[in-house]
Amino acid sequence: MKIDGKHRRTIWVEPDGWAVGIIDQTLLPFDFATRRIETVEAMAEAIRAMRVRGAPLIGAAAAYGLALAMREDPGDRALESARARLASTRPTAINLRWALDRMVEVLMITPPDERLKRAYAEAADIADEDVEVCRAIGRHGLDLIRAIHQRNPGRPVEVLTHCNAGWLATVDWGTATAPIYMAHDAGIPIHVWVDETRPRNQGAFLTAWELGSHGVPHTVIVDNAGGHLMQRGQVDLCIVGTDRVTARGDVANKIGTYLKALAARDTGVPFWVALPSSTIDWTLEDGLRDIPIEQRGPEEVAEIAGRTEAGTIERVQLVPDASAVANVAFDVTPARLVTGFVTERGLCAASFEGLSGLFPDQVERAVKRAAANDA
Amino acid sequence: MKIDGKHRRTIWVEPDGWAVGIIDQTLLPFDFATRRIETVEAMAEAIRAMRVRGAPLIGAAAAYGLALAMREDPGDRALESARARLASTRPTAINLRWALDRMVEVLMITPPDERLKRAYAEAADIADEDVEVCRAIGRHGLDLIRAIHQRNPGRPVEVLTHCNAGWLATVDWGTATAPIYMAHDAGIPIHVWVDETRPRNQGAFLTAWELGSHGVPHTVIVDNAGGHLMQRGQVDLCIVGTDRVTARGDVANKIGTYLKALAARDTGVPFWVALPSSTIDWTLEDGLRDIPIEQRGPEEVAEIAGRTEAGTIERVQLVPDASAVANVAFDVTPARLVTGFVTERGLCAASFEGLSGLFPDQVERAVKRAAANDA
Repeated sequence: MKIDGKHRRTIWVEPDGWAVGIIDQTLLPFDFATRRIETVEAMAEAIRAMRVRGAPLIGAAAAYGLALAMREDPGDRALESARARLASTRPTAINLRWALDRMVEVLMITPPDERLKRAYAEAADIADEDVEVCRAIGRHGLDLIRAIHQRNPGRPVEVLTHCNAGWLATVDWGTATAPIYMAHDAGIPIHVWVDETRPRNQGAFLTAWELGSHGVPHTVIVDNAGGHLMQRGQVDLCIVGTDRVTARGDVANKIGTYLKALAARDTGVPFWVALPSSTIDWTLEDGLRDIPIEQRGPEEVAEIAGRTEAGTIERVQLVPDASAVANVAFDVTPARLVTGFVTERGLCAASFEGLSGLFPDQVERAVKRAAANDA
Repeated sequence: MKIDGKHRRTIWVEPDGWAVGIIDQTLLPFDFATRRIETVEAMAEAIRAMRVRGAPLIGAAAAYGLALAMREDPGDRALESARARLASTRPTAINLRWALDRMVEVLMITPPDERLKRAYAEAADIADEDVEVCRAIGRHGLDLIRAIHQRNPGRPVEVLTHCNAGWLATVDWGTATAPIYMAHDAGIPIHVWVDETRPRNQGAFLTAWELGSHGVPHTVIVDNAGGHLMQRGQVDLCIVGTDRVTARGDVANKIGTYLKALAARDTGVPFWVALPSSTIDWTLEDGLRDIPIEQRGPEEVAEIAGRTEAGTIERVQLVPDASAVANVAFDVTPARLVTGFVTERGLCAASFEGLSGLFPDQVERAVKRAAANDA
């Protein structure tokens, strides 16, 4: 999407044709800086330090990391070592492993002297495919926004989102934000309520920044405020991303998503979840029972970094010294609270019927895999 | 309640018998300091600067402020001027006006040369009455906690609260915290999940500090986390305070309360609201329609103050420069989501029947007042 009027992706090959460029997201929203990555080590550091973050972007970054490794040494041992190095950066990121597996599979059947070229091509494919998936999600979600606009042509469509399911988490477009950007670019007036999304404030730090950079009107609110806005009729549509969706449509997403879904249900506001189908975990049914929830460090709640009046970034403590702190990263929104899913193949109900109707091929593959595992 | 093992109130007459002591709450949770107040001007500053805050405490502070004014000049003109001075500090605080009216009414029928003594006595009565009301709320709420403990004697009773309805907002005990302190003091094992309560973080800054000072086990969480904890069965009881309750039981309280009430309803967790009956506004029915909601400055969301590693208190910015920010101070929780009220006269249903059953005298007074206004 756009920054200062110029279109950008979150990851790219530099004009020299080999180094990889990224946006250093740890500096957002107060500084915008790109970073030139020349080695697999530097890419591993960028992933681990969360200079690049968001499952789809991490996958593309890891793929380019392997390509950089092939520049140094295209041999089997170097390939395996680079894969291990990259895989260890964010151990729970499923997309990271998926991208590395795909790269290694392709490269192992490629002669070493052709691997370098092949690696860049495959990494570019992974990035481009992500863009296409997000673009397709955007097109389908745009229908929802357009329909609301046609019912109320005299005012902006009011959308609420939580966390960052934006283009910064992907290669371009984002998932939950893709319909928003498309509506904005299509001239539909739109305004986004951005939950700040404590404790890591990805809403305030990333979503607000990227919407602002692209020129989309938005307002940052505390996570506590969304229910009130829905009660007052100030939200037409909630749309969020997800980290994992079960086969029956339960949604794991950033902590607090469940509370917004409850408010949407209570006030009659549609609550949509945007996802690439790669996020569906066909092996799980009951999200509350089956999805493991990450507990993260208490310092993410107890401290926060922001910009001082002097312009420096400072970390400040927000809880008394003697208080215990708990930090649960995700929650599960039951399918019954979800109006529907926006996927790259279209809209569907938040149910096994809905998901399997759009993705019968994936169901078939999952069934075969399960049968093979049982055998 | 206790600080470092010593019992304290939030406001007191100093040992010299005339100056008034307060806790400077703007320094909490990182510094504990008391402040000696010697003039009505100093008390007005303390209220306006929120060194004392919370409706009941503001009322008591204003009453003592008038007493200090009587030391300087017990004449009618001085009395009226002190009342105006104090009333202007927090114009929307109903309790402030109520306490000032009560003081002036008493002092106007007292000869000037007896006003000083009478003013201190009346201010002490106001403070003592607040303590007794909170104590009574605590006793009735204790029954709820004891019942949960008796069903699950092997583990702590898990309570979730939002914002600060603690003793720091009153003279002692607090409202929502009174049952918690009583349970703790009675030896019932209890643990409190404290919502940090963005944007002003009264949960993390005040509730966590006061619970910790008294020795009550507690854990600070982000406002997003409570729904998840309830889903996982980690909350036995929610208990919050309120700024205003309508005659049919709708509850205005700190922004985000509604979201917790929704989660409690969805997960079967009892959701209680603790209140002195002075909080009931018998003239209002539909809280969503009738209760005006305060919009506050965006800087409360956009910036936060905390302690740096160097030990200084620093204010840091949390949103991009270009982003709009909205700051809604309260929301309304419909009576249908409230399990019941804990009042100084006992427990009751969140309905007109429930409230009027406990407070028929207040209903009668309200009806007479309305008839007089109509005439």
